[in-house]
Amino acid sequence: MTGSWHGEAAAVATLTFDVDAETPVLAAGRGYADHMSTMSHQAYGPEVGVPRILDLLDDLGVPATFFVPGWVAQQRPGLAASIVERGHEVAHHSYSHRPPTGMTAAEERADFERALAVFAEQGIPISGHRAAMWEATWQTPDLVAEHGLRYDSSLMADDRPYRLAAAGGEIAELPVHWSLDDWEQYAFLPAPQIGSVITAPSTVLGMWCDELDAMRQYRCLFNLCVHPFLSGRPSRIVALRKLVEFALDRGDVHFARCRDVAEAALADRSLPVRHPARPEVSPEFFPH
Amino acid sequence: MTGSWHGEAAAVATLTFDVDAETPVLAAGRGYADHMSTMSHQAYGPEVGVPRILDLLDDLGVPATFFVPGWVAQQRPGLAASIVERGHEVAHHSYSHRPPTGMTAAEERADFERALAVFAEQGIPISGHRAAMWEATWQTPDLVAEHGLRYDSSLMADDRPYRLAAAGGEIAELPVHWSLDDWEQYAFLPAPQIGSVITAPSTVLGMWCDELDAMRQYRCLFNLCVHPFLSGRPSRIVALRKLVEFALDRGDVHFARCRDVAEAALADRSLPVRHPARPEVSPEFFPH
Amino acid sequence: MTGSWHGEAAAVATLTFDVDAETPVLAAGRGYADHMSTMSHQAYGPEVGVPRILDLLDDLGVPATFFVPGWVAQQRPGLAASIVERGHEVAHHSYSHRPPTGMTAAEERADFERALAVFAEQGIPISGHRAAMWEATWQTPDLVAEHGLRYDSSLMADDRPYRLAAAGGEIAELPVHWSLDDWEQYAFLPAPQIGSVITAPSTVLGMWCDELDAMRQYRCLFNLCVHPFLSGRPSRIVALRKLVEFALDRGDVHFARCRDVAEAALADRSLPVRHPARPEVSPEFFPH
Amino acid sequence: MTGSWHGEAAAVATLTFDVDAETPVLAAGRGYADHMSTMSHQAYGPEVGVPRILDLLDDLGVPATFFVPGWVAQQRPGLAASIVERGHEVAHHSYSHRPPTGMTAAEERADFERALAVFAEQGIPISGHRAAMWEATWQTPDLVAEHGLRYDSSLMADDRPYRLAAAGGEIAELPVHWSLDDWEQYAFLPAPQIGSVITAPSTVLGMWCDELDAMRQYRCLFNLCVHPFLSGRPSRIVALRKLVEFALDRGDVHFARCRDVAEAALADRSLPVRHPARPEVSPEFFPH
Repeated sequence: MTGSWHGEAAAVATLTFDVDAETPVLAAGRGYADHMSTMSHQAYGPEVGVPRILDLLDDLGVPATFFVPGWVAQQRPGLAASIVERGHEVAHHSYSHRPPTGMTAAEERADFERALAVFAEQGIPISGHRAAMWEATWQTPDLVAEHGLRYDSSLMADDRPYRLAAAGGEIAELPVHWSLDDWEQYAFLPAPQIGSVITAPSTVLGMWCDELDAMRQYRCLFNLCVHPFLSGRPSRIVALRKLVEFALDRGDVHFARCRDVAEAALADRSLPVRHPARPEVSPEFFPH
Repeated sequence: MTGSWHGEAAAVATLTFDVDAETPVLAAGRGYADHMSTMSHQAYGPEVGVPRILDLLDDLGVPATFFVPGWVAQQRPGLAASIVERGHEVAHHSYSHRPPTGMTAAEERADFERALAVFAEQGIPISGHRAAMWEATWQTPDLVAEHGLRYDSSLMADDRPYRLAAAGGEIAELPVHWSLDDWEQYAFLPAPQIGSVITAPSTVLGMWCDELDAMRQYRCLFNLCVHPFLSGRPSRIVALRKLVEFALDRGDVHFARCRDVAEAALADRSLPVRHPARPEVSPEFFPH
Repeated sequence: MTGSWHGEAAAVATLTFDVDAETPVLAAGRGYADHMSTMSHQAYGPEVGVPRILDLLDDLGVPATFFVPGWVAQQRPGLAASIVERGHEVAHHSYSHRPPTGMTAAEERADFERALAVFAEQGIPISGHRAAMWEATWQTPDLVAEHGLRYDSSLMADDRPYRLAAAGGEIAELPVHWSLDDWEQYAFLPAPQIGSVITAPSTVLGMWCDELDAMRQYRCLFNLCVHPFLSGRPSRIVALRKLVEFALDRGDVHFARCRDVAEAALADRSLPVRHPARPEVSPEFFPH
Repeated sequence: MTGSWHGEAAAVATLTFDVDAETPVLAAGRGYADHMSTMSHQAYGPEVGVPRILDLLDDLGVPATFFVPGWVAQQRPGLAASIVERGHEVAHHSYSHRPPTGMTAAEERADFERALAVFAEQGIPISGHRAAMWEATWQTPDLVAEHGLRYDSSLMADDRPYRLAAAGGEIAELPVHWSLDDWEQYAFLPAPQIGSVITAPSTVLGMWCDELDAMRQYRCLFNLCVHPFLSGRPSRIVALRKLVEFALDRGDVHFARCRDVAEAALADRSLPVRHPARPEVSPEFFPH
């Protein structure tokens, strides 16, 4: 890929797996550790979903990126390595999956660096970051750049990569969007209360194929985010297989790891540079 | 269009785009300005969605109306002009997107007039108004009439235009309805918590085509409201294109700007005149 | 219809329209009367929906039952009479649409009797009752029987009519169910917050046709409940028309007013008699 | 079935019916006993749904398992026996349907043992258990083993049976999952507020057939959980019939009672043994 970030492809697809395991539930309340059923629901992700997904990727011959919270990598020492060994990327997904917007700047920094320490200890190379709950603060890109990572994947201001002028240097942003996330479609738990109706995988598959086709028209990044504890379930992983097969059939969709897309984006000088700027919001007009 | 407000058409379609950008989120809490991901999610509207929509409208050759909060026009000085230059209408959508029902009468007036001042300063002619969150008060039509605007588009007592006897004179009402709004179908944010399941664009397209066909039977105003931060996304804008093509294929659907429909409605003496009247509600029967 | 309550029909269909207008919103909070948009959303029911529904029924040649809160009949003096004149039934739907379960026994009685007084004053004959929000108390059937009404339609213990041994005598119960109500499918308001996703009418039509077909197998009462402020909208009323046409095409579905079904049910001695009995619930096992 | 827990079958299907009746509502609040409509909605389950389901199972010739709260069995003395007489299994589903995670250890034990006492008194043999609301605690498997039961069915760490090393000995776990539960799809009540949109049975049928087909690929346990008060309704029970017919048509799906699957799983030494272990969660990283 030289010149344009997408090369000859009509669209670039990054399959990303957020291996959250127990963390989103524990971040909502430490006491949920007492809920054995809920813990088992989350454990399904790394224990059943991830191996099944790795086999699927092998079978299809496409690379992927796994965003793993540091706590999860620590609790299951062989997990990150088992992903890297299969040719995929492991990336930074916070330590505890607490959303940065709910932490002080110092807490966010500590959580961020703790995760890096875990991966360093395990010898896992890290190039990029995704904020827990996709809830980055204005400090987040600076932390990413300061620690030498090359990209973030938590923002939503475009559906094509963009360059972000962070305090510590330029990084690539690989934007996400809720409509390419399996959480809204599949997640359901009574406590903590998550989700409402569970959508049929065939409906989700249709929606994602339509989005991919439209993204081919607009030359976008199809940055899919799925969770092994959700999309590792049988008919959902079959839907994921069909989606990848659909994309491969199109013939003009390029599958890549996030780190490779980030390098191509940083090398593409035609991409816009955005300068993060928190809106000034007067209490006169927005009193609450 | 003389005589009947809809002329020869079976139905009249007004494509309206509420360019809310960050305002609905900031109106829910000023502190959300700290949430970089959420801000980027909203910024997508004016930055990616609006240009894409303007190109689509050019391509299809249909006019539209963009309801813009004054704060948004102020933050992005060229935005409103870029819409008007393409032959579309810009209309009043409050200053801050706080719902009028949550303000005192004086606050609503101040917010209303501040938006008008912004548009006056930018040389943008304004003929009509839509209340933030479609939450008009009984004062709202009076403000519209008092400031010389010709129509409001926030009420739901009919699916055809009607004339409204406001304190400051008669205005046209171009009614809206939640089923012709993309918010209920597509909006999802974790904080502030908005939406639940994200509907597939193909489902939304089918629903809107059915409504248009039924409105052709009843000679209605197909007053569609979509948000650039939602419907600017690839498969959703493709669905919007298909909807307009579907309507054009019918051959008897007239596309118009709201201001033109309002003038036709005000000139149609066969349309009913409604006199706003707040229901009298006794605490004896409705104690809460 | 002699002998069996359903005669020769495989299923009996009662089309019921709950003409709630502003009441469910005002029952949730008197202050919502200040919300002009919300009031207009509710006013659509009696002002646009009801006339359109009456024309549809004429066109299809089927009878129906309209459950009207006393407050609504009082606010719009000609409304109930306009329904009766077209050959349909008007029935009791509380005075204020406050759920009985949220009132004291004395308040429920006062609200119940106030509605009867309104209908008596307007010369509207009343044979049956439906509790607001389908939230009957154990006193409700007794009120129905004590005031000489013949049936209630607020309970869900069966999908066929049953006889209810109330304190004041036997009445018929024409059971309802949430899956045959348009509220869950279509209702959406931001304040008071009602609903989430708005379902496509074609989906609702499919669901109701399937239920009707299944009810033909089990010889049930297809007791459909729709709201003019919801199902009076164009594509929804077209879906309602298709549903009735589907039923008529089956050739073995009998359409009737609730009062006629109630008389047939009371005359059918093979129907079970249920004796209302509040479950005894020990605080030892159910502490909250 | 010897050797492999699934024998020659591609997938094993356990049809399970949670006969909750009034208990989930009363567990949410004892005061709901005053809500006659809600009580009737729940009573539909044992009174209409269960007999209809028993006839359906006879007709299809497949065995099933009914999880019954002790309180329900006590309130309706002949209910459990009527199920056993038809060749099906009755299993333990708590006494009061309060979730174990909301009780102290002593309360959970008392509730657990009280249910066993009810079934002992009624002469109903019990082999397995399912936690109310699928909210097991880390104590739950120990209670199951200690009382000589052979399996639990409340956890979600796999979609194939597994062996669980409980304090009192090894038991089988027959895992459940929310996507094979009719609650998320069909349940709707205004008070206590449960559910949002009601899904069409044809959509649910498609989703479950897809899951079954995918489970045939992965050799899973298709452990379906439906509720008589929900799935006993006409078009839903017709959808259930179609699902079973679909499975029978596949020719390689084995239907069994939970107790038989549990015995086969315990005899299959190739199945993994899991050791329940509550995650250690530091307040440093998970402060809330």
